[in-house]
Amino acid sequence: MRPSRRVAVKRLPKRASYDTSVIHAILDEGVVCHVGFDVDHQVYVIPMAYARVGDRLLLHGSKKSRLMRALSAGRDVCVTVTLLDGLVLARSVFHHSMNYRSVCLFGRSRRVAGAKARDAALLALVEHLVPGRSADARGPSAKELAATELVEVTLDEASAKIRSGPPVDDKEDLDLPFWAGVVPARLTWGPPVPALTLGPARAVPTYVLEYTRGS
Amino acid sequence: MRPSRRVAVKRLPKRASYDTSVIHAILDEGVVCHVGFDVDHQVYVIPMAYARVGDRLLLHGSKKSRLMRALSAGRDVCVTVTLLDGLVLARSVFHHSMNYRSVCLFGRSRRVAGAKARDAALLALVEHLVPGRSADARGPSAKELAATELVEVTLDEASAKIRSGPPVDDKEDLDLPFWAGVVPARLTWGPPVPALTLGPARAVPTYVLEYTRGS
Repeated sequence: MRPSRRVAVKRLPKRASYDTSVIHAILDEGVVCHVGFDVDHQVYVIPMAYARVGDRLLLHGSKKSRLMRALSAGRDVCVTVTLLDGLVLARSVFHHSMNYRSVCLFGRSRRVAGAKARDAALLALVEHLVPGRSADARGPSAKELAATELVEVTLDEASAKIRSGPPVDDKEDLDLPFWAGVVPARLTWGPPVPALTLGPARAVPTYVLEYTRGS
Repeated sequence: MRPSRRVAVKRLPKRASYDTSVIHAILDEGVVCHVGFDVDHQVYVIPMAYARVGDRLLLHGSKKSRLMRALSAGRDVCVTVTLLDGLVLARSVFHHSMNYRSVCLFGRSRRVAGAKARDAALLALVEHLVPGRSADARGPSAKELAATELVEVTLDEASAKIRSGPPVDDKEDLDLPFWAGVVPARLTWGPPVPALTLGPARAVPTYVLEYTRGS
């Protein structure tokens, strides 16, 4: 993917990637994206669920929300997904950093229209959250579908930015009497908590028990 | 805190809180914020480290960066911090959700000026990331200080939004043959990885060994 002007990473460009497979892997591992858009000269940054299907990022929400009304009308948005991988402790305060993988996507939101496209988008959103779940839950009713707005943004202008590995200290700091290294961070999933309204005989499905994301 | 028009949570207002202690607790637990701002009618959403001191949110970065140049000049920003607490699996696809705690802050960025204020801000940024670290690392040199830009945003217009607890299914769905419940999510910290350049005799400090965030 060739970077457009607005998406080209200017600061620390060696951390940048425009490789589609890198961008897709980060998007597929993430759970929450942060959607930035402008309404009447006011910038909003809203955390949202999302899904990637091919080269499209899908978002959904209530048709009544200010957010979805804005997005379905077509907005220039910036969508960012950030995965935190660790805290980087250098000998010097200056070289402290974080290990992370992030994707920043620019594009114009478009309403997903048509029953078939909307069904596919909803399915993708559930499967992004919990693979296997869409076949093990009640599908949307006509009323629920009517209350749901779906929008998409094409992944034409996306970049990844990645930092990994140990701290990078100045040579003259290496012998300073301070510990240096990385504290790895990971999003982990606890034992499932069944709803109290669930009968005791209802076993936890395998796709829930073995839930994990990324590699 | 009384919500201003732009910060008032319109969608699902029962999830909103304008309580300062709730807002502070979320900000203090978070590691990464997403900063939204506008440059030449283009919205950017950038993941950044931050710290809270009293009623101010602090950000920092390279003086050379496009981002810090924009923020230090004074920008209307929206800063969002999101903590993911779980996936909420309802019997119906429609009622699937996430448990989360988020804060959304609106304000105008201002440059932090003056040696004393800048020192205090840098200290806060390190201590936000790893409490105890600022006393166990080399402080910034004059050159490093000169390369670093610091900005702040007052927490006047902030709101929290929180979802917690089990799925809420429609009554008529409760007997459907699907598992329902929550998969808890948590950011966890792995065993520290010492830098290869570190002598084997250098013990891992207690504040690193026992690193944790939130409650």
